[in-house]
Amino acid sequence: MTTITGGVTAPKGFRAAGLHCGVKDNFTAPQPEKKDLAMVLSSVPCAAAGTYTRNVVKADPVLLTMEHLADGKAQGVILDSGNANACAPKGMENAKRMADAAAKATGLQPKDFAVCSTGIIGVEINIEAIEKGIPPLAAALSDSAQSSEDAALAIMTTDTRKKEIAVTAEIGGKVVTLGAIAKGSGMIHPNMGTMLCVVTTDCAIDAALLQTMLREVVSKTFNRVTVDGDTSTNDTCVVLANGLAENEPITGPGPDYDIFYEALRAVLEYEAKMIAGDGEGAGRLVTCTVRGAASEDKAEVMAKAVVRSPLVKCAMFGADANWGRVLCAIGYSGADFDPADVEVRFQSDAGELLVCENGQGVVFDEDVALKVLSAKEIVILVTLHEGDASCSCWGCDLTYDYVKINGDYRS
Amino acid sequence: MTTITGGVTAPKGFRAAGLHCGVKDNFTAPQPEKKDLAMVLSSVPCAAAGTYTRNVVKADPVLLTMEHLADGKAQGVILDSGNANACAPKGMENAKRMADAAAKATGLQPKDFAVCSTGIIGVEINIEAIEKGIPPLAAALSDSAQSSEDAALAIMTTDTRKKEIAVTAEIGGKVVTLGAIAKGSGMIHPNMGTMLCVVTTDCAIDAALLQTMLREVVSKTFNRVTVDGDTSTNDTCVVLANGLAENEPITGPGPDYDIFYEALRAVLEYEAKMIAGDGEGAGRLVTCTVRGAASEDKAEVMAKAVVRSPLVKCAMFGADANWGRVLCAIGYSGADFDPADVEVRFQSDAGELLVCENGQGVVFDEDVALKVLSAKEIVILVTLHEGDASCSCWGCDLTYDYVKINGDYRS
Repeated sequence: MTTITGGVTAPKGFRAAGLHCGVKDNFTAPQPEKKDLAMVLSSVPCAAAGTYTRNVVKADPVLLTMEHLADGKAQGVILDSGNANACAPKGMENAKRMADAAAKATGLQPKDFAVCSTGIIGVEINIEAIEKGIPPLAAALSDSAQSSEDAALAIMTTDTRKKEIAVTAEIGGKVVTLGAIAKGSGMIHPNMGTMLCVVTTDCAIDAALLQTMLREVVSKTFNRVTVDGDTSTNDTCVVLANGLAENEPITGPGPDYDIFYEALRAVLEYEAKMIAGDGEGAGRLVTCTVRGAASEDKAEVMAKAVVRSPLVKCAMFGADANWGRVLCAIGYSGADFDPADVEVRFQSDAGELLVCENGQGVVFDEDVALKVLSAKEIVILVTLHEGDASCSCWGCDLTYDYVKINGDYRS
Repeated sequence: MTTITGGVTAPKGFRAAGLHCGVKDNFTAPQPEKKDLAMVLSSVPCAAAGTYTRNVVKADPVLLTMEHLADGKAQGVILDSGNANACAPKGMENAKRMADAAAKATGLQPKDFAVCSTGIIGVEINIEAIEKGIPPLAAALSDSAQSSEDAALAIMTTDTRKKEIAVTAEIGGKVVTLGAIAKGSGMIHPNMGTMLCVVTTDCAIDAALLQTMLREVVSKTFNRVTVDGDTSTNDTCVVLANGLAENEPITGPGPDYDIFYEALRAVLEYEAKMIAGDGEGAGRLVTCTVRGAASEDKAEVMAKAVVRSPLVKCAMFGADANWGRVLCAIGYSGADFDPADVEVRFQSDAGELLVCENGQGVVFDEDVALKVLSAKEIVILVTLHEGDASCSCWGCDLTYDYVKINGDYRS
């Protein structure tokens, strides 16, 4: 597997576009320079799979996309940023109008489209702006790397950087390409962060198999990210596979399945880490790895509790080797373990520091601790000494800017 | 039931004291003005009950107290603030030395004492300072209101105010008194908030019954508070009942049981709300009440998710009527419900505001919203229209000061 430049337009037969249509204008000062409408389109029908927020309160575009992809087929995705179209008046009507407009502009059917929205909740979306923006959006579709970047920029809210990746792998003698764009942890106004991801690939793969694989990979990537513990109403990850790489279609377990699985996992892990490190107000990417556990599930529960803990997150902001909070978090995670077996280390590019052994503190050099924890990427390594399983989860520090972004916009 | 002035010394036969011995000196600038050692003592043996942190990582004083109170008997509590004696070298040895010193100074046995500690984790406690402080502490024991206040002050860490209450109730023709001191959500150095509560009463009640009652009342009071979702290693709530009110001992269900239950509930609810409103960095007490639910358990799960949500907490800090985050939180709480049935209101001394009806936003006056949400105590009222059950949980806003207290002490 090789990482290449580009994003969703890297695989054969995919075009994309992103532009400003005005959805973002309603709730902030007009931002004509901020793109807010994107499309990704395959030249031929695709096997399609999707995973969606587990929140009981699902935005209407999520419900519509679930319906459209239920048969495992789709050809494109239409996305806006600025309004989540969740708990909003005329929500389903407007989500359908987005799909209708996308279909009309491309000569396809509404059900060929997944619809994704991210932004403010509870406010009617400016559907007129979207309907006006879709024909020029369709006209701008191109297979250039710039087009993928335009789409990646057009789905950002408070994201500070685009989240694009492309990889290639060889499957049955053919070069297969995967590309993705994602956004995470953003809001443009009083709102919650949402996470969206579109993956394109020219791999030929059975739709039902792709759905099963996507669910498993998401559980090991996006579902291991937490910025603040708040699961949004709009989270969506869609994969479109158009088969143009002409590989022998993947229809079950085997080497081809394994190679594609690993490529998809790498793509989603990259996007997951990008989202964690670009969490609202974040200064550092914080990874917690729990190893030596009796099972991966248990390691995951413990690692997730650590990266979610506000106290751990504040300590990471302060570059403070406060390992007591790590022990506290694994202690209330719900997993059972013997505290006397626990070892904790902090790691970064700047070095490694042992802070807790056999469940008790060890003396360490505070200057080294400050150096290790002042890096942009920190790993909290917890070792249990009870088995061979391990798991990493990703989060970020809790900063003044998180509070500012989410609380202070009225001042 | 009547609320009276005073605290743990209000019931007959209880004395208390609090002073500075030096536990707090190790990790901050010496604070000779800050009390850090407290004792509460009954003149006669008591029926005793306790509830303890559910964290797998339990501090040694918690383990020792569980052992001492296992027979339902105790006579006093010795407490320090500044060091939690958790994950610390010589933890159990030093917890025992605290009980030994308390016993020696009062002519009792070590197992007559509950031991509570709160403060930094993973660092050896200054047991010499405590052993030196206990004789003068015992000498200072008194049944005055001032003594209870001294003890209440001596268990504070970053708490900004003492948390004391006393109530009386008539049981079987006798006046029974309950008093309590508590601390919550504090740290004096890199550390987690911990919650301690000591309740005294002169009511005569069977120890096993008291234990059952305490567990139930704690589940409806302290367990409905969240400041940051981090359950500490040291949480302890101890009740001592010495029987000096000379009521007919309460040994089972009946009117006496109900009256005492209600008095204990009122005392612990008061302390719970005091802890929530004095959460680290908190500017406002935030109550979420879910009503019209199919069951109290369900209402509790939903209300707790709302007061725990960092996004809701930031919105409360910003006095922002961001009800979409409330819907999001109940949506991922784990409870099942129909979003289309949900109504959300914000309430405070300054008024009431309907913001969401039938699961969708309603137009409201932003000026009124700002007024309602600028109060010191906010209620988020969620109505489900599916049953008669309700539950309130308590928390606070998420402020710059929370991040400062927990992340910024090294700068």
